Amino acid sequence: MRRSSTVPHPHTIQEFAFIEGLHRRFGKTGRGVVLGIGDDAALLRVSPGEDFVATTDLLVEGVHFTLTTASYEDVGYKAAAANISDIAAMGGRPQYLLVSIAIGPAHGRSQLHGLYRGIMTACRPHGIQLVGGDTSASRRDLFLNVTLTGSVARGKALRRDGARPGDLVYVTGTLGDSLAGLCLLAKRPPRLRGGPQMVSSLIARHLRPSPRVEIGRVLSTRGLATAGIDLSDGLSGDLVHLCRQSRVGAEIDIEALPVSAALETYAQRLGADPADLARQGGEDYELLFTVTPRNAARISSLARAATCRITRIGVIQPKSAGMRVRDRAGRLRPWKNVSYEHFKN
Amino acid sequence: MRRSSTVPHPHTIQEFAFIEGLHRRFGKTGRGVVLGIGDDAALLRVSPGEDFVATTDLLVEGVHFTLTTASYEDVGYKAAAANISDIAAMGGRPQYLLVSIAIGPAHGRSQLHGLYRGIMTACRPHGIQLVGGDTSASRRDLFLNVTLTGSVARGKALRRDGARPGDLVYVTGTLGDSLAGLCLLAKRPPRLRGGPQMVSSLIARHLRPSPRVEIGRVLSTRGLATAGIDLSDGLSGDLVHLCRQSRVGAEIDIEALPVSAALETYAQRLGADPADLARQGGEDYELLFTVTPRNAARISSLARAATCRITRIGVIQPKSAGMRVRDRAGRLRPWKNVSYEHFKN
Repeated sequence: MRRSSTVPHPHTIQEFAFIEGLHRRFGKTGRGVVLGIGDDAALLRVSPGEDFVATTDLLVEGVHFTLTTASYEDVGYKAAAANISDIAAMGGRPQYLLVSIAIGPAHGRSQLHGLYRGIMTACRPHGIQLVGGDTSASRRDLFLNVTLTGSVARGKALRRDGARPGDLVYVTGTLGDSLAGLCLLAKRPPRLRGGPQMVSSLIARHLRPSPRVEIGRVLSTRGLATAGIDLSDGLSGDLVHLCRQSRVGAEIDIEALPVSAALETYAQRLGADPADLARQGGEDYELLFTVTPRNAARISSLARAATCRITRIGVIQPKSAGMRVRDRAGRLRPWKNVSYEHFKN
Repeated sequence: MRRSSTVPHPHTIQEFAFIEGLHRRFGKTGRGVVLGIGDDAALLRVSPGEDFVATTDLLVEGVHFTLTTASYEDVGYKAAAANISDIAAMGGRPQYLLVSIAIGPAHGRSQLHGLYRGIMTACRPHGIQLVGGDTSASRRDLFLNVTLTGSVARGKALRRDGARPGDLVYVTGTLGDSLAGLCLLAKRPPRLRGGPQMVSSLIARHLRPSPRVEIGRVLSTRGLATAGIDLSDGLSGDLVHLCRQSRVGAEIDIEALPVSAALETYAQRLGADPADLARQGGEDYELLFTVTPRNAARISSLARAATCRITRIGVIQPKSAGMRVRDRAGRLRPWKNVSYEHFKN
């Protein structure tokens, strides 16, 4: 639907041509792409024995980001990273990207260029190719929708519904850093006197998360995990999603939650418990996955070779046991979902 | 990226849950869908020997539609139809849909329900399944991004770049109706005294186009067409796209352009040439395709069996001959691109 009933502002028509140029520049495609940008649809090859995975994320100015605290490059990076993380959580290989963008009168060429630079910065390490998109004017706000597709070996996908009682629960990386980074960006608390190193590392974790594609792929191809999800809403809520879909309960050890030194410092200055921040979290884009006990040794050896931490944080229980957390005093308490819930997929 | 720096209005959070309900209701999936809505990404099966096709369209309130002239149901229908037409233009089978939507404070439940009803009305005849999406608040305008994927037999896709000099040029259906419908919706010209039948048929062609999926598939599976494109920008511009990508010229016979009786009446009342409206067009969502002369008889027999007209409108020429139109007096004139150009894919 390319025709407008209301004609977009002339400024934007020029920007359309500019974006077309960016798409052509970044849209040089290779392996697996039969046809990229320029035809009615992209034409993509799927290897025999593989299934296709597809996910989409919408980012809206003033809702998901404000351009006062994030650069256009940050916004582009994160839009792509959120999608890459969804594919990683399926144990898939991210491959093909479609970018839809609506630009308002305030968004000029250098900003748009930054947006695409950010998208491609997130995509390049994974060999993801830009294969299509759509561009429109917007009366005010910037809208960015990214659709990412990829592939996974048939029957090997990390689903949310495969966890069974007795399975061990693991997470990659550290938790809560992104939330702390967001708080630091939004308003630096006056009582916070952390050094610039701590501040910048937390902000970087918020603005430039690292989707765990390699670990997801190892887990799926070697059949090591029974279920998996990425931590986008926060451990608190995402664990609920996984347990609900697997029809199980869980017991999480609060002391086991992996936190970074930067988060420890940040929490200490705030007088908060770092584990609470780790549990609430959000946008960490780490993986949460479950493993049968007989595979525990293989996860330990994977952890030794991995570029990020892999930490065992608890165990899956029968549904009847519910979801509980073991606090620092060793008491079991009900698990509370303190995440911001948001519908996705 | 589900967490907000700025919290969406409470009204919208309720609507998120409502949309989630709609997705679950319309997201009952069947054949080919290993996992639909509810996991990190959709998991889709591709048959051996098939390639994957993917396309995306973004619709923005106040730019692509105004809710004063189109209902939410119309907007949803057309967003889906535009994507279906792109897959049809590849000769593909449309299969899997992802819907991203950003809703402002003015968009309530019954409106959202209408939007999804429209989407599914367009999708149902083709067996297209809703497999994922994302939902967000918007500070004001409604944004709707639809990504559609599907499949096509390997090596059989209708590309834009396969037309060769001597190939015959065909279009499906009639041209210009949608543009006339848009004009009628925007402002009924006072001198227009057409009966309600003519008016409603043109408006229906604008609001509820019929993507030519079946014809596209027959053309691709039987290897009947050398190139194909859907008429979304209008014949004027889309022919330029096809010729440019095939590196050829073309000669179009203005008298051959298929126009409906309703468009004839409309043009007559306006004192315009219906062929000019047909050529400018836009959003007809018909197919334009090219065929070698030895397949002309097979197209004639296809036309007799088809549910819509298939009309030969010209012939492909060498690039050096340029693009020309034969007017009613038999004179050859340069082909002018009078379409509204808009970047897509």
